[in-house]
Amino acid sequence: MARQATPLPLALPPRTAGIPAARWLANAIRREILDGRLRSGTRLPATRELAQQQGLSRGTIVAAFEDLAAQGYLEANVGSGTCVSRVLPDELLTLGGPSTPTRTSTRTEPQKVNPTHPQRLSRFAQRARPFPGFGETASRAFRTDLPALDLFPTALWAQITSRRTRRATASQLRGCGPLGEPTLQVALADYLTHSRGVVCAPEQIVVVSGVQEALDLAARLLIDPGDRVGIEDPGYPGAALVFEAYGAKVVPLALDGEGMAVPSRRQGNLRLVYTTPAHQFPTCVGMSLPRRLALLDWARSTGAMIFEDDYDSEFRYVGRPVPALQGLDRHGVVLFAGSLSKVLFPSLRLGYLVVPLNLVDRVAALQSIHTRHPPVLEQVVLRDFLAEGHFGRHLRRMREIYAERLTVLLEGAREKLSDALELSEIEAGLQTVGWLRAGLEGETIAHAAAARGIEVTPLSRYARRPLAREGLQLGFAAVDAREIRRGVRELASVFAKGR
Amino acid sequence: MARQATPLPLALPPRTAGIPAARWLANAIRREILDGRLRSGTRLPATRELAQQQGLSRGTIVAAFEDLAAQGYLEANVGSGTCVSRVLPDELLTLGGPSTPTRTSTRTEPQKVNPTHPQRLSRFAQRARPFPGFGETASRAFRTDLPALDLFPTALWAQITSRRTRRATASQLRGCGPLGEPTLQVALADYLTHSRGVVCAPEQIVVVSGVQEALDLAARLLIDPGDRVGIEDPGYPGAALVFEAYGAKVVPLALDGEGMAVPSRRQGNLRLVYTTPAHQFPTCVGMSLPRRLALLDWARSTGAMIFEDDYDSEFRYVGRPVPALQGLDRHGVVLFAGSLSKVLFPSLRLGYLVVPLNLVDRVAALQSIHTRHPPVLEQVVLRDFLAEGHFGRHLRRMREIYAERLTVLLEGAREKLSDALELSEIEAGLQTVGWLRAGLEGETIAHAAAARGIEVTPLSRYARRPLAREGLQLGFAAVDAREIRRGVRELASVFAKGR
Repeated sequence: MARQATPLPLALPPRTAGIPAARWLANAIRREILDGRLRSGTRLPATRELAQQQGLSRGTIVAAFEDLAAQGYLEANVGSGTCVSRVLPDELLTLGGPSTPTRTSTRTEPQKVNPTHPQRLSRFAQRARPFPGFGETASRAFRTDLPALDLFPTALWAQITSRRTRRATASQLRGCGPLGEPTLQVALADYLTHSRGVVCAPEQIVVVSGVQEALDLAARLLIDPGDRVGIEDPGYPGAALVFEAYGAKVVPLALDGEGMAVPSRRQGNLRLVYTTPAHQFPTCVGMSLPRRLALLDWARSTGAMIFEDDYDSEFRYVGRPVPALQGLDRHGVVLFAGSLSKVLFPSLRLGYLVVPLNLVDRVAALQSIHTRHPPVLEQVVLRDFLAEGHFGRHLRRMREIYAERLTVLLEGAREKLSDALELSEIEAGLQTVGWLRAGLEGETIAHAAAARGIEVTPLSRYARRPLAREGLQLGFAAVDAREIRRGVRELASVFAKGR
Repeated sequence: MARQATPLPLALPPRTAGIPAARWLANAIRREILDGRLRSGTRLPATRELAQQQGLSRGTIVAAFEDLAAQGYLEANVGSGTCVSRVLPDELLTLGGPSTPTRTSTRTEPQKVNPTHPQRLSRFAQRARPFPGFGETASRAFRTDLPALDLFPTALWAQITSRRTRRATASQLRGCGPLGEPTLQVALADYLTHSRGVVCAPEQIVVVSGVQEALDLAARLLIDPGDRVGIEDPGYPGAALVFEAYGAKVVPLALDGEGMAVPSRRQGNLRLVYTTPAHQFPTCVGMSLPRRLALLDWARSTGAMIFEDDYDSEFRYVGRPVPALQGLDRHGVVLFAGSLSKVLFPSLRLGYLVVPLNLVDRVAALQSIHTRHPPVLEQVVLRDFLAEGHFGRHLRRMREIYAERLTVLLEGAREKLSDALELSEIEAGLQTVGWLRAGLEGETIAHAAAARGIEVTPLSRYARRPLAREGLQLGFAAVDAREIRRGVRELASVFAKGR
């Protein structure tokens, strides 16, 4: 290729504030080269000339040229000044096409992608469906996935965090084992033993980012494509999404007044069953003791494992919490999971998975090549919050508040919604179900409610088979009594209109 | 089964401090029942009698009994007092065996596991091998995986964290999208554009816990069992561990003075290639520009993807950083990953993966059903640290300190180790390689050094095929000049002994 004089002046993008001039110039020339506007062999203006033209010192130009020469973009040729390196294959450089006109900024220009590059996805990625966004819209009546965030003691949490960070030891800045920070494992084992009737040693606790990661971990540990996995129907959609991404065949299990039915023989050989015995998502039924025992017996005799999602177990208004299924397990058939998203706050991303002793090492291996471990400082802050009694106090305070809000909802519903809705009697949790009078259509009501700023989710959205009776999922924790009353009134208007 | 009088007194474990008496008693009786010491139908002592015997009020005993009755463990029978429920199948309850003697505490007793339960593991779990622990031992010369943790500005980090936590908005307590907190995505895109020559829009940034999670995500996105994946040989072991767990066939790629070799046709159809072009792990070679271009060309023409681990790129002592391979990519063939473990601290667990635009939605779907998103407050603290200029200042300060430490190592090695070791000339990074004189055996030296409290890793540990020349990986960032000098002296003694 014949050398050519460069067209003068060089068309360069405007200076970016805060970037040294030499670096800006080197970036700009590099971009000209890579976009094919300065071709292989092209001679650059003399440094003095370019300095004048760009209003920069000659030293700046020399520094930029040297930098680009060191990177292989420019080369110095005796007698002919500085040229664009001929090592750069023209073919590669211009494949992006004549692309953008001059004066593009590398700063905001997204990467150009040639859609012909055959990015074949894995079968996992092909199967995976997204979990609908959460955490992206504000609290409103009757949202179910949020606690009362405005009542979280952020000042106290900030104080503990600040203390822990200032005093962070070298060991805490380094990391911890793949299952979590050992003192948090102890504190969680203690909490789960006494509050949830879980029977475990601290080394069985895996600190995870929440139930969703726990589900992924369980699936990774146990599920091969083609395996059959039982889930509650209707049930938590996050579970089915994980199992289906792993290529499992999901088998819906019916619910009755005692909770999830024990799988029958004709439902095939199940590898794993997912259940929410404390407060079934979304029907709010608690699993009876006989059903729990029968389920454990079934698992033991078939070789299946049980994933116990301790969903919505923490706030109890009547009696005391029913101990976890895990505490009844004598054969290591239960994986027990819970999250701190509702007891503390969701963006904390901390939860726990309790695994049978003989699976601990395998789970540690899986985590060690994945996230390695959760952030350490967050874990020690949570440990302090538990060990110093703040956790218990926060739980008790919130239980009182949620009990009040539940009362407001029950009274409002009795007064204004009883023609259309029959509320479940719940003993615990942050949500209930309003069973719809026959003839009312869940989706129609949900849409009309949404238009009025009210969130009610029809149970049919969580169902894989037709429901015997449609209901609306109603949360009462996220907003205060006034908002709940307003929500009840709005909902009453929706029903009035629909009549 | 005939009713029997209960043996008096009931053998119960000692009271646990901090637990209400009624709850303790209910737990203890429940444990007696589940362990088969109180059998189905067994009559319990009268409440008055038990109150006296245990030194508790009668009200406490009644509360505990009512609680257990509500859970289904006890039943009241007219004329015969309170009995252990006959709903409990004896068979199930006693399968755990006569197990532990009396006076066990549920508090510390780990779950009993019957090893006959057929916990079949997934093929993934069977293939997965653990990553050797990190973060569990203290810093010492010549550790490579740690920065100077004692110099991290924890007070400043604590101040930002405290401010951000106190002022946390409801939205920040709720969560963020699956790719990360949007303002952090912007700050990282800005940093990577200007410091690393990455070409991306903020929405291409995935906030992950580190390169290890980024590797897992890439594998999940692209790799099916049986796929072929190229890795540098010798290379970072965390990469091969992930790909092998996914069932990939790992293909070692040779290194030369320009970095990783471009895969040849006889190495088969590769789906993905893993490389560390900035500062190859562990040989410290930087990939030349022609090699970078050839590698991109190869990927484009074969349909392979490139995972660019921007390992050890941040601290540069000579010239300015060589821009990322990703910045040269015009076809969306590069996934670019980095971690903040060494620039900030490892237990923070924050890093980034930059993905081609057309893969963003798929990656978001994968994350949404997995960890959902990283903790939000940590992300906004990092964003502030970047946006307020602390990050740049910390980087500059540490570069000076690390440059000094490198000088101390080079001088010490020249003076005391030159008979045995030839140090690589590095321009950047926190580690170098000491190439061993022929005849010296890496493992022997590493073991002798370890006995003297010195950490040097033979490159052969990272190699899949015999090395042309053995070397020792030498980090110089984790400890101060005095410790480096001591390390050099100890290493000199090791070589002297070996002669």
